[in-house]
Amino acid sequence: MASPSSERRTTCSVVCTISLTSFITRLPCNVKQVDAHGLLALSERRTHLVDEVLERFFAEQRRRARGIGEAYSTLWETLERNSAGGKRFRPRMVMAAYESLGGQDLESAATVGAAFELLHTALIVHDDVIDRDFVRRGSPNVSGSYRDIATTAGIPIPIAEHRGMSVAVIAGDLALFYAYRLIDSGGLSEQVRRRVVDVLDESMFLSAAGELYDVDFSIRPGVPPVEEIVEMERLKTAMYSFEGPLRAGALLAGAREEAVVALGDFGRGIGIAFQIVDDLLGVFGDEEATGKSNLGDLREGKSTVLLAHAVTRPEWQEVAHLVGDPTLTLEQADRIRAVLEATGSRRFAEALARDYANRAWEALASPALTSRVRDEFRPVVAGVLERVR
Amino acid sequence: MASPSSERRTTCSVVCTISLTSFITRLPCNVKQVDAHGLLALSERRTHLVDEVLERFFAEQRRRARGIGEAYSTLWETLERNSAGGKRFRPRMVMAAYESLGGQDLESAATVGAAFELLHTALIVHDDVIDRDFVRRGSPNVSGSYRDIATTAGIPIPIAEHRGMSVAVIAGDLALFYAYRLIDSGGLSEQVRRRVVDVLDESMFLSAAGELYDVDFSIRPGVPPVEEIVEMERLKTAMYSFEGPLRAGALLAGAREEAVVALGDFGRGIGIAFQIVDDLLGVFGDEEATGKSNLGDLREGKSTVLLAHAVTRPEWQEVAHLVGDPTLTLEQADRIRAVLEATGSRRFAEALARDYANRAWEALASPALTSRVRDEFRPVVAGVLERVR
Repeated sequence: MASPSSERRTTCSVVCTISLTSFITRLPCNVKQVDAHGLLALSERRTHLVDEVLERFFAEQRRRARGIGEAYSTLWETLERNSAGGKRFRPRMVMAAYESLGGQDLESAATVGAAFELLHTALIVHDDVIDRDFVRRGSPNVSGSYRDIATTAGIPIPIAEHRGMSVAVIAGDLALFYAYRLIDSGGLSEQVRRRVVDVLDESMFLSAAGELYDVDFSIRPGVPPVEEIVEMERLKTAMYSFEGPLRAGALLAGAREEAVVALGDFGRGIGIAFQIVDDLLGVFGDEEATGKSNLGDLREGKSTVLLAHAVTRPEWQEVAHLVGDPTLTLEQADRIRAVLEATGSRRFAEALARDYANRAWEALASPALTSRVRDEFRPVVAGVLERVR
Repeated sequence: MASPSSERRTTCSVVCTISLTSFITRLPCNVKQVDAHGLLALSERRTHLVDEVLERFFAEQRRRARGIGEAYSTLWETLERNSAGGKRFRPRMVMAAYESLGGQDLESAATVGAAFELLHTALIVHDDVIDRDFVRRGSPNVSGSYRDIATTAGIPIPIAEHRGMSVAVIAGDLALFYAYRLIDSGGLSEQVRRRVVDVLDESMFLSAAGELYDVDFSIRPGVPPVEEIVEMERLKTAMYSFEGPLRAGALLAGAREEAVVALGDFGRGIGIAFQIVDDLLGVFGDEEATGKSNLGDLREGKSTVLLAHAVTRPEWQEVAHLVGDPTLTLEQADRIRAVLEATGSRRFAEALARDYANRAWEALASPALTSRVRDEFRPVVAGVLERVR
């Protein structure tokens, strides 16, 4: 099968045409953020359907909450705002799988997609509690919103921060519970519902394991080996963001078992590739294009494939002490980047991402999948391959 | 209908005989802990069935987790240990409602009961995160276990504590997700499953609201009015511990709507009564009998009905500054107790608990409920009435 990266222009299956050249990022010098959702066939219709499901869902919960009290209704509004900032990437994975496998009941697919979106909201809200982050995508998250309300009311910062995180624990619980609950309102047959819930279960089960490993990494001295980092990323993110939504969409469409497995394999590979690329962008990314600091990961000393490779090289000693320093300067970051180039760590991470993306592409060659499926997901693979070539 | 408190001895409907005299606590001088679960018809068989469901559930999750790694399996073991310490109070509420309404499929009832037990585990694990507690029932909770592992490994206490709470966030998420999930393995008909899930939903929805209000109370200056405290206790605990399990048990038994509503009303009233009594025991309880400090609530400045009543009296000024002082001495606590007596706050709280217990008992008089149901729950009401007479 021809590698999709050779194509310069892909016609998306639904409503849009994406010029792949617009996504091209040539590492090393001008890494551009490739907006993950843009790599999928951009379907405003899909997003719109998912938005509608979530709007109805949140309107209903706000209505219920108002019956209890204003403060509770405000919590639901805050949760909705935190959920609305995203690009509905996971729901669109569900719908892309569903539609490309011939599914017709878009409303049901949008509901299951919305469930994965709520699961995502739950996991990031609690991840932010664990990381003591009060900001996400440049705006206050749940913890930040509630911290700010408290500080404005004159409450001292440590108490206000604790209050913010306490409310975020509650909000994440609600998002998690209602992720499951939404599946029940999708009008699925009992047989399909059970199988979709199995996938949601596996997504939650693996994601919790990944979060546990991530917490362990953060207090463990040194950087874990590459395999452990890849495994953590598979567990924590790839399953619930890629493999799970794709398998759920395929099940909804009534696809054969082989098709479900093949799409799942694709999701696992491409999900891991994405995470590795994200780690690359976290250090080498163009801040203007990615919208986030390329110092954060280095200041935090985040365990990534890049670092796992670098620490085994003698040159690393020169900059090892700088990683994890919250006051790291721009110049020091540049020194680290130079060493990551010199050690071949950047090339290693790029090759690893490419390898996972290629494996993902091969999974799509399964005879259980049609060319329509391959057309749907080609841009995703192509995007990753372009980003790391 | 005769008040059940006039009976000195009640034959329980299943396997045991409870002497109510053994539960009698005469406030004011010798408040004894009345073990809530002891007030229900003690059924070792019911507990055993629920234990079996939970043992199978945890064995299965540990098996799955081992496939991922030792650390994850250990997390599941820790969660199981935290779940096992309880007395299966909520499952037994489910089963008492179910059996007294003629239900025969004890296995299904035990599974739904186990779901409420897991919901309880989730809520207390996260409540402990919010309260920064590392101990429950005298043993390390999830946060405490993981903090201790970290400190033993030489990790500084603040980092170890944060690690403990991070893992507890993850563990609580798992318990919450699998509370819902367990309902799916109860072999229920789709119609019944949906209605039971509705009750689980309401339990979660209200409990989150109650936790939010509790967090708000803790940072708000002063003590909220009595009605707000009662409402918080209804939301945070009475629904998921009493009303929800009882309604779920009734639905499982195929009871008529009137019976479900009547048992729910009973649960709400008795649940609130229990919480008020717990607050009384938190200040006036005999530590040896209750197994927990009667200084904790005063040192923490916990908002209770007792305090809400007291703060409106002029005598309160004398001790107001002592409440919330973490170094409160035994003598100071005695001074507060004396003022709570003098202001009539203790009598007020006792009367309020009695009032809710009586309303609960009246709900059981519904013609939709049989004498078997009343026999089943009479000891619960009697116990509360005895505790506050």
